[in-house]
Amino acid sequence: MEASKKPVLYSYFRSSCSWRVRIALALKGIAYDQAPVNLVKDGGQQLSPEFFSVNPMRQVPALKIDGVTLSQSLAIIEYLEETRPNPRILPQDPKKRAQVRIISDVIASGIQPLQNLSILQQVGDKKLEWAQLCISGGFKALEQILQETSGRYCVGDEVSMADLCLVPQVYNAERYKVDLAPYPTLRRINKALLELEEFQTSHPSRQPDTPPELRA
Amino acid sequence: MEASKKPVLYSYFRSSCSWRVRIALALKGIAYDQAPVNLVKDGGQQLSPEFFSVNPMRQVPALKIDGVTLSQSLAIIEYLEETRPNPRILPQDPKKRAQVRIISDVIASGIQPLQNLSILQQVGDKKLEWAQLCISGGFKALEQILQETSGRYCVGDEVSMADLCLVPQVYNAERYKVDLAPYPTLRRINKALLELEEFQTSHPSRQPDTPPELRA
Repeated sequence: MEASKKPVLYSYFRSSCSWRVRIALALKGIAYDQAPVNLVKDGGQQLSPEFFSVNPMRQVPALKIDGVTLSQSLAIIEYLEETRPNPRILPQDPKKRAQVRIISDVIASGIQPLQNLSILQQVGDKKLEWAQLCISGGFKALEQILQETSGRYCVGDEVSMADLCLVPQVYNAERYKVDLAPYPTLRRINKALLELEEFQTSHPSRQPDTPPELRA
Repeated sequence: MEASKKPVLYSYFRSSCSWRVRIALALKGIAYDQAPVNLVKDGGQQLSPEFFSVNPMRQVPALKIDGVTLSQSLAIIEYLEETRPNPRILPQDPKKRAQVRIISDVIASGIQPLQNLSILQQVGDKKLEWAQLCISGGFKALEQILQETSGRYCVGDEVSMADLCLVPQVYNAERYKVDLAPYPTLRRINKALLELEEFQTSHPSRQPDTPPELRA
């Protein structure tokens, strides 16, 4: 494959949704180039007219692949799963697939959007309390769900899309100083996942656009 | 199949996420019972300890089906699609499936969570402006996306999961008095969809828990 045909990931080192996709690409062994989009510099590079043509939602990640440009992290991950099924990140059993998607959606619809940078900017002064409230509410639900579904990872013993959502959300929780003590199952799974190479190489501290002072 | 084995949908007539699932059940011809959860009465019945055991996220919809209880509307719809594939609500082509999921996720992660009742209660006084800002930002992106993907409906000429998300979100936009003039493609598709019986019988104005004064 020519270098120019490599997928291009529009991402920001610290964006949790970008990290989800980086893990998926790593797990599936897909080589790609990164096109960093700095969400804070120049008032937010995602707001430029050029980026509107990449993703009208003005959000990262977006992925150029197979001649199309995809956005929305879970839609990207489902596309990768359907077109590059090995190794799979959705189980075969429909009920287990549903568990994976429930956990993924709890994070992607129920937690992350509420503590997104652009929302926190609108919230203003009470930003930290707001983020903590949104995250801890979701984590309380997740802890309960994970007690039913988890093995070594979120659903059984295989890494799934749910795990790709969990680890970046815990990273956000730590940034916003959420007390994780009430969520032992969640903490255990997060720790096990961070031992995997694919979660390490995709980590915000190791990206091309990671500022030197935040590098691991 | 015994009556007791019918799926049970925990829902609220006006919840847009509940409506998404009602449309899916109607399209697939799945008979079900409703267990209404009133999100405003008694301080919110979704906050009861009994409902926590149904869905720890304390949100509707939830669906008891095939011996399990599922939550998160898109996870429920994907499960129905995998277990009851006819008529399909995801296209066969992976790129078109991705388009459907992108549109669905723009609504389910990028718009709806930000104008959810529980968030608006936290926002307080500026509630209406907040809801309008969230919805119009998302609709601007959607209009752009739909210009590329739509035929008669959101993606080509077949009803898909994206349509199940669109119509309830437009209903919310109308409730919050969002000016829809700038989104002609979105309005056209919404109108075409509302002509379908499955979108009519599942409408908030025709549910068992719809108050008499709001009945169609």
